Amino acid sequence: MKIAFIGLGVMGFPMAGHLQNAGHAVTVFNRSRDKAERWLASNPVGAIADSPAAAARDADLILTCVGNDDDLRSVVLGPNGVIKSARPSCIVVDHTTASAKIARELHSALAEKGIDFIDAPVSGGQQGAINGQLTIMCGGDTEPFAKVRDVIGVYARQVTLMGPAGCGQLTKMVNQICIAGLVQSLAEGVQFALKAGLDAEMVFDVIGKGAAQSWQMVNRHKTMIDGQFEHGFAVDWMRKDLAICLEEARLNGSHLPVAALVDQFYSEVQAMGGGRWDTSSLLARLRNHPD
Amino acid sequence: MKIAFIGLGVMGFPMAGHLQNAGHAVTVFNRSRDKAERWLASNPVGAIADSPAAAARDADLILTCVGNDDDLRSVVLGPNGVIKSARPSCIVVDHTTASAKIARELHSALAEKGIDFIDAPVSGGQQGAINGQLTIMCGGDTEPFAKVRDVIGVYARQVTLMGPAGCGQLTKMVNQICIAGLVQSLAEGVQFALKAGLDAEMVFDVIGKGAAQSWQMVNRHKTMIDGQFEHGFAVDWMRKDLAICLEEARLNGSHLPVAALVDQFYSEVQAMGGGRWDTSSLLARLRNHPD
Repeated sequence: MKIAFIGLGVMGFPMAGHLQNAGHAVTVFNRSRDKAERWLASNPVGAIADSPAAAARDADLILTCVGNDDDLRSVVLGPNGVIKSARPSCIVVDHTTASAKIARELHSALAEKGIDFIDAPVSGGQQGAINGQLTIMCGGDTEPFAKVRDVIGVYARQVTLMGPAGCGQLTKMVNQICIAGLVQSLAEGVQFALKAGLDAEMVFDVIGKGAAQSWQMVNRHKTMIDGQFEHGFAVDWMRKDLAICLEEARLNGSHLPVAALVDQFYSEVQAMGGGRWDTSSLLARLRNHPD
Repeated sequence: MKIAFIGLGVMGFPMAGHLQNAGHAVTVFNRSRDKAERWLASNPVGAIADSPAAAARDADLILTCVGNDDDLRSVVLGPNGVIKSARPSCIVVDHTTASAKIARELHSALAEKGIDFIDAPVSGGQQGAINGQLTIMCGGDTEPFAKVRDVIGVYARQVTLMGPAGCGQLTKMVNQICIAGLVQSLAEGVQFALKAGLDAEMVFDVIGKGAAQSWQMVNRHKTMIDGQFEHGFAVDWMRKDLAICLEEARLNGSHLPVAALVDQFYSEVQAMGGGRWDTSSLLARLRNHPD
């Protein structure tokens, strides 16, 4: 299959590589060309294009994985966007974590050209992208979903159609909402265990098998106890995602008091210089608090 | 072994039964005698005593599982308390969720009589007590712990000595702190998924395998979606436990903003008449919020 891959960030870079390794003809575009050249050095059978439009020409499947709604609108609908060259009957799949609104907007704009669009944000982080173990939450129509499912499945352990356009993004939002307060509570627990003079590793070994158990507790308590915050998803990205959640909550009438509060806590972590620390750095903020 | 069991609530009732079934000679005491009589009807080889002191006479091991610090002080140190009759070299193990302060106080008061004391709060809920699958977090000295470990192990899947007197209680506090914000975030996620018009069960099936996963998500999302809040630990008990956590945090200098906030949310659930609902009823509070 001829595939265009637009956006070679920490996620897109390995994802495009998996597609090339699976035998597809992958043409990449990245805003800063040096990353595209590094990708080509690792994937010498691929190709580099000079614009999203150039990458999308002749492609059967166009994948995007960029920063935010504006970047996404630009690479799809902009003057050098995918829509300028993509042929009817091709499919655009977007892996950006973005708003449900932009997903519906792109679905509708592309449909006018006979092009299908699927919003397909992922979870699993950089490690999941490298290992091909992402979870992909899709929104869109069933026919194009059936066509792309196995293709994008090369970097996923799970690819699910959640509903019509926007439903992939909405599902990703639920994921981030659930993580926000969970990580804060875990940080409060770690802080309390240390202040109480407990053997904190033993504490989480014990309670990590009961009703307080979480993936975050099992996988992050050791690095948190050690004060290491370089093990995953960055605070700057989490704030971007929480902004999307809080905006959507205004639209649908959800009440998110703890997600909103934790977003504010993350702004304090940013003020501490921790924008690139991982989400568990809420603990650093607690430690920074006077006794 | 001759065992006294004091406090036949939803936890103590089945725990005392496991000990009787394991072949020990169990004498029970409960403040309202009718529960003790119901227990004896199910465990006809046991016996009923008229006071904690009477139950404790000749016992090798005395177990307590009562409501709070005051109840515990009363059954151990009060005029008809265990301390009046317990013989030197016996061991008192307390399963109440209580403060670390009372645990240290009882450890010290009983030590003067040559009696060992172990604080041993549990997690796993009523179902865990019935199935004999509790997690028991102990604080105290190593010698008496070694003596009682296998005895109380009949109703536990895990019995761990966390450190000296009070450390069982402190570990239980970490557990409750971690659960508080986790359940609130899950409630916010469920609320958001429903308001967004998603297939909420599918959402949690998908995200329940990734970084947002928690025991609460896996085991409670269905009942939450259905608005059923009768599946576990009651809000009234959670507030009692959070009060202990927040008081201890004042002493040790921990900063627990979300645990404190969720405690306030639970007070709103109580005001809604939900004191006996389970902890996931934070969702009912969100639903009660105007759009």
